[in-house]
Amino acid sequence: MEALLIIDMQVGSFMSIPRFDAENVIKRINRLSESFREQHKPVVFIRHDGSRENFLIHGSPDWEVLPDLIRDKKDQWIEKTANDAFYKTGLNDYLHREKISTLYMTGCATDFCVNATLHSALVKDYDIMAAKDAHTTADRPDLTAERIIAFHNWLWANLTPTQGRVQVKTTDELVAGLS
Amino acid sequence: MEALLIIDMQVGSFMSIPRFDAENVIKRINRLSESFREQHKPVVFIRHDGSRENFLIHGSPDWEVLPDLIRDKKDQWIEKTANDAFYKTGLNDYLHREKISTLYMTGCATDFCVNATLHSALVKDYDIMAAKDAHTTADRPDLTAERIIAFHNWLWANLTPTQGRVQVKTTDELVAGLS
Repeated sequence: MEALLIIDMQVGSFMSIPRFDAENVIKRINRLSESFREQHKPVVFIRHDGSRENFLIHGSPDWEVLPDLIRDKKDQWIEKTANDAFYKTGLNDYLHREKISTLYMTGCATDFCVNATLHSALVKDYDIMAAKDAHTTADRPDLTAERIIAFHNWLWANLTPTQGRVQVKTTDELVAGLS
Repeated sequence: MEALLIIDMQVGSFMSIPRFDAENVIKRINRLSESFREQHKPVVFIRHDGSRENFLIHGSPDWEVLPDLIRDKKDQWIEKTANDAFYKTGLNDYLHREKISTLYMTGCATDFCVNATLHSALVKDYDIMAAKDAHTTADRPDLTAERIIAFHNWLWANLTPTQGRVQVKTTDELVAGLS
C-alpha cells in the first residue's frame, strides 16, 4: 500500500521566505492528494513544530498548513520537531499499522525536511516515489532554489537502494501510475 | 568521548572519478586521525561494499582504502552496503559500547555517504563535528564538486538540532579543539 507524505507545507514557511514555484507545487500536491483519497490510500500531513527555534510555533497562525492545500477528515497528521519526520514521532508505527510500504514524497523544504525524511525512510526499507515537481525550497547562499531542487532530484534517483529504492517522477507520471 | 569516522575513502572512488582537492583532503584526514590516535580516541574506517552494484566489490583492489591514508592496528573497520553507514552494520553498537557521543565526520562522497551518515547520526542523537575541508565529492550534472561541498557545509550547519547538534569546522579548528 502507498501513502502520500505532505511535508511542512506551513504558512510561516511560505510567508516570510519565497519558495520556488510555490503556487504550482501546491496545485500538484492537491492533485496527488485527491488521487490518493479517491483510491482510499492514506494522505499524511507532516507539520513542523519549531517552538524550540521560535519558528513555526505550535498553535500559531504560521504553524498552520497552507489554506490552499486540500484536506480531508480522514487525513493523518504528524507533528515533528526535527528535519526527519520519523524522529520521535508516531509516523513509523502508523505506516506499519496501515501496512504502507511505499511513500510518495512532497513538500518543503527540499534540502532540509524532505531530504532528511527521504533518507530516513530509505534506511527503514520503504520504497520511495519522490514527486520531482511537488517539493520546493528557497534560494540559499550561492545556489538558487531551482538548482537545489534539480540537484536533489538527481541525488535521490542515484541513492544506493536498501531493501527499498527511490524513484523520482513528475506528478503527472505518479498520478498515472497510481490507478 | 569522540570518534573519527573516515567514510569510503576507497581506491575505486578516486581512480575512476576526479574528486575535488583529493590530495589535501587525504592530508587533512591523516592530520585528524593522528590527533585522535595520540589522544587514544577511536578512528573508524567505513568501507563501502558495492558488490551488488558491481562497484567497489568486496576484496577487490578498488575496494581497498587509499594507500596514502595512515592506519593503525587499533583502528576500527565497518563494512556497509548503503549510503548510510549505520544501515545494517555494527557501527551504532560499537559506538555505544565505546560510549562515543560525538562523531567527527570526514570522507567521500559529500552528497551521498557522508550526507546520509551525518543525517542518520543526528537522529540517533549524536553530536557531530563535520570537518568542512576533509570531505569531497565529484562534479555532478550542472554543479561542480566545489559548490556541492560548500552547499553541504552550509546545510549541515543549519540542520535542526535533535538531542545532538551539528557543527561544521575546519580541520585546523577541529584539531585545536581536540586537545
